[in-house]
Amino acid sequence: MRVRRVPGAYEALTELKTYFIEKPEEHKGKWREVFGNDHPIHAEFGGGKGKFIIEMAMKYPEVNFIMVDAVTEVVLKAAQRAENHQLHNLKIVMLDLRFAENYFAEHELDRIYLNFSDPWPKKRHYKRRLTHREFLEIYKRILKTDGWIHFKTDNKGLFEFSLNEFAETDMIMRNITLDLHALGWEDNVMTEYESKFSSMGHPIYRIEVTYR
Amino acid sequence: MRVRRVPGAYEALTELKTYFIEKPEEHKGKWREVFGNDHPIHAEFGGGKGKFIIEMAMKYPEVNFIMVDAVTEVVLKAAQRAENHQLHNLKIVMLDLRFAENYFAEHELDRIYLNFSDPWPKKRHYKRRLTHREFLEIYKRILKTDGWIHFKTDNKGLFEFSLNEFAETDMIMRNITLDLHALGWEDNVMTEYESKFSSMGHPIYRIEVTYR
Repeated sequence: MRVRRVPGAYEALTELKTYFIEKPEEHKGKWREVFGNDHPIHAEFGGGKGKFIIEMAMKYPEVNFIMVDAVTEVVLKAAQRAENHQLHNLKIVMLDLRFAENYFAEHELDRIYLNFSDPWPKKRHYKRRLTHREFLEIYKRILKTDGWIHFKTDNKGLFEFSLNEFAETDMIMRNITLDLHALGWEDNVMTEYESKFSSMGHPIYRIEVTYR
Repeated sequence: MRVRRVPGAYEALTELKTYFIEKPEEHKGKWREVFGNDHPIHAEFGGGKGKFIIEMAMKYPEVNFIMVDAVTEVVLKAAQRAENHQLHNLKIVMLDLRFAENYFAEHELDRIYLNFSDPWPKKRHYKRRLTHREFLEIYKRILKTDGWIHFKTDNKGLFEFSLNEFAETDMIMRNITLDLHALGWEDNVMTEYESKFSSMGHPIYRIEVTYR
């Protein structure tokens, strides 16, 4: 996503302290304390402006949600939306997922969502794809044993790549669909991209994976 | 495939004895004797009129090929084509794959091809799909350990179903593609369906799977 630079965005973010966690490294291994309960923690990696995770947080009040993104402007938007909804079970952080283990302890997350991740279409950038096997190795360590990763995208090339990465990483796969919206799955919460692209007739690909 | 009935087709077949094996059950465990050598045996299940397997047999003379189909008229066509090419490494049989173990011994096959298998679109017919888990259990017993199944189709619903069946059967997957012809893979041998549907712009899905 190309984003218009907003002067003062980071300063604005730091004022939304209820939702935006400025130093996530301080909470490594202690995220349950941040939420003040023992509910499971679901993280969305690459959450953008937060439509998906805010709807999820409203729909599942007994789950704690952490949205991760690296772009200040979209994180600000997500934090502002979260504030509008007064959600007790959502925190937002900015961090570089290559170093996710600096922020989350071993097996600290109960689920990971990857929604419409940046497809990085050039081959030399494939290592930046959030389903690249090097990321999958990192997620394995911070995701609880038997925790699932839910991945969806409208990008056929990214989905194909991801299937092969999951296979090469010897992951367990389930609920694979090449046209999510044809299923009529009522519990599907749509992201912003998803609303846009599926209304344009693009099929949405989805899979759930876990580690052996 | 809907096929026009041809009177006398079976009789015509039985005259093509070099290619058509009338009683495959008699060769269970002894297919190498039929070919008179120890080359690996690759079988195509649902070979139709034989375009794929005949090209394969010409391209790989050091491999023995067995084409399986259940429809007399298409098997006749395949056998006639085989005769035109005077292929020493191809045999054609008619049998019901639900009982494949009556015709092939344990681990007798080195590879299985499933090409553009009948999609059986109605849910009550899913058990007839050649990638249904019940068929996968049968193939496991007749395919050698570490032997691969190569599957391709233009049918998205069938491919999606198959991915889930492979996953549920805990198979190992590799070389998954959602658009085979975009890869420019020079060794691809096309089936009749494949030529037709890919020229109409349909993407071709392909995967290789094996058992743990």
